[in-house]
Amino acid sequence: MSSAQFIAADWGSSQLRLSLCGATQVLDERAGPGIAALQGRAPADVIDVAIAPWRAAHGALPLFMAGMVGARSGWVEVAYADCPADAAALRTGLHRFHSQDHAVAIVPGLACINPQAAPDVMRGEETQVFGALALQPQLAQGRRVLVLPGTHCKWVQLQDGRVLRFQTSFGGELFALLRRHSQLAGNADAGHDADAFAFGLRRAHAAASLTHVLFEARSRQLREAMPAAVADAFLSGLVIGSDVRGALPLLGWQQDACDELTLIGAPALCARYVDALAQQGYPSRSLDGAQCALAGLRALAID
Amino acid sequence: MSSAQFIAADWGSSQLRLSLCGATQVLDERAGPGIAALQGRAPADVIDVAIAPWRAAHGALPLFMAGMVGARSGWVEVAYADCPADAAALRTGLHRFHSQDHAVAIVPGLACINPQAAPDVMRGEETQVFGALALQPQLAQGRRVLVLPGTHCKWVQLQDGRVLRFQTSFGGELFALLRRHSQLAGNADAGHDADAFAFGLRRAHAAASLTHVLFEARSRQLREAMPAAVADAFLSGLVIGSDVRGALPLLGWQQDACDELTLIGAPALCARYVDALAQQGYPSRSLDGAQCALAGLRALAID
Repeated sequence: MSSAQFIAADWGSSQLRLSLCGATQVLDERAGPGIAALQGRAPADVIDVAIAPWRAAHGALPLFMAGMVGARSGWVEVAYADCPADAAALRTGLHRFHSQDHAVAIVPGLACINPQAAPDVMRGEETQVFGALALQPQLAQGRRVLVLPGTHCKWVQLQDGRVLRFQTSFGGELFALLRRHSQLAGNADAGHDADAFAFGLRRAHAAASLTHVLFEARSRQLREAMPAAVADAFLSGLVIGSDVRGALPLLGWQQDACDELTLIGAPALCARYVDALAQQGYPSRSLDGAQCALAGLRALAID
Repeated sequence: MSSAQFIAADWGSSQLRLSLCGATQVLDERAGPGIAALQGRAPADVIDVAIAPWRAAHGALPLFMAGMVGARSGWVEVAYADCPADAAALRTGLHRFHSQDHAVAIVPGLACINPQAAPDVMRGEETQVFGALALQPQLAQGRRVLVLPGTHCKWVQLQDGRVLRFQTSFGGELFALLRRHSQLAGNADAGHDADAFAFGLRRAHAAASLTHVLFEARSRQLREAMPAAVADAFLSGLVIGSDVRGALPLLGWQQDACDELTLIGAPALCARYVDALAQQGYPSRSLDGAQCALAGLRALAID
């Protein structure tokens, strides 16, 4: 264990993932509460408790952190870096301070004017993007579209290793709200149903607006005996289909339109986006979001 | 008070409106809990308590009821009437029974295959539609589009006094969910801001999908200092703009495309739809939803 060099913290709204890192490998891992779920505890105290065993064994290692930890509602508000932004811009924008003798560095989020001419922001995904570049250097060549599904899905245009701009869609949070608080959803415990999901995707693309197809998740249960057990998958198809539809104007932007799109995120969620994009003629492949976050923090930690 | 002839009950999910009716006027009114808010009490008991004073004064008057009272989760499930449907179809479909010596008649909802080729349903709005026809007989001539904003907005195609078909949009419930449960909303106590609302409408029509503009309600607060006090009006514009956008394929259907559309609903909500439709070049005028419901029940009660 003498090779521990730094601690990587991927600290989002709902989860804290800590990794004790050597020069090339992860030596140990711990999890903790999201930055939005501290219930009044100070972020510094939460970190101190979580890393106490590592501190006892290895002393005050440097901490590299990314995610909502740098938001106004996080530990310390870190200014966004403006796009276009490359990995060097993230390094320049690191917010550095000390906490209990640990040198802490929080990665800045990114801000841009998005392809729809609106202001847009991300926190955490920028570290996954540059982590993906560290893992797959060929992504730094030419024009690429990266898609980061999640609570808020980020559709990123990357040129020669720089984030030119990106666009946020609200599908993940919308789906969660509809499932928890509306009468549209079916049986939340049901497994995924690929046919119902694909049907939802097609309906999202056929309608003139998402608001005019959402009620189908209810009316098809009432009038076509759609089983409640598949209504959730249908609803997921409606929302992810709407997400993909909204991104179509920026998807053709890649250097070679036949190139695969790159998805970064939780594998099960990425698999749904792979299907949704394939239905519109876009091939894609997936990278694990947690691995990309770690690779991004490692790239910043190891000069 | 000797002229009381029947009791009209507009019993939706969130509210019960009772009217003691004479041949031409309302003699008294009472309010009660929505059919989805009975907290285990039996609908018959709630009605008995609510109309006890009228019963004492006038005996067992007939009760005419419309709304979610006829849903599976209501008092008695009443079969939908299929479109095309006229006022006579509602009368034929009345579900009649007795409760405490009162003759009760519950109006059937309507079912159709909507303009997007999906099954669709309504309960309560059909009574408002035929009430509007009773109040404004010229609406029964030719092709008309009626719009009933609410939790679920109904876009109705009417030909020669028959409901041909209709389409449900989910905007009202979606807006309520976003305001209550998401970080998009601003200050719920703020008044309406007409400029922010109009800007939201324009953004909804400019984007390729609603999911790709919703986040602007947050990012414009973070990056453009949009005051929280106007963010709700902007979000309302995004959602109602998406509602109108989804209905554009069916709006041009009227006999004379220059004719006004007819809105039926709560006056303040209708006023927002008047603005949203005007922005897209559609003139409209509003009828009060509660008055239309009462007129519809009266038309069924008085042969």
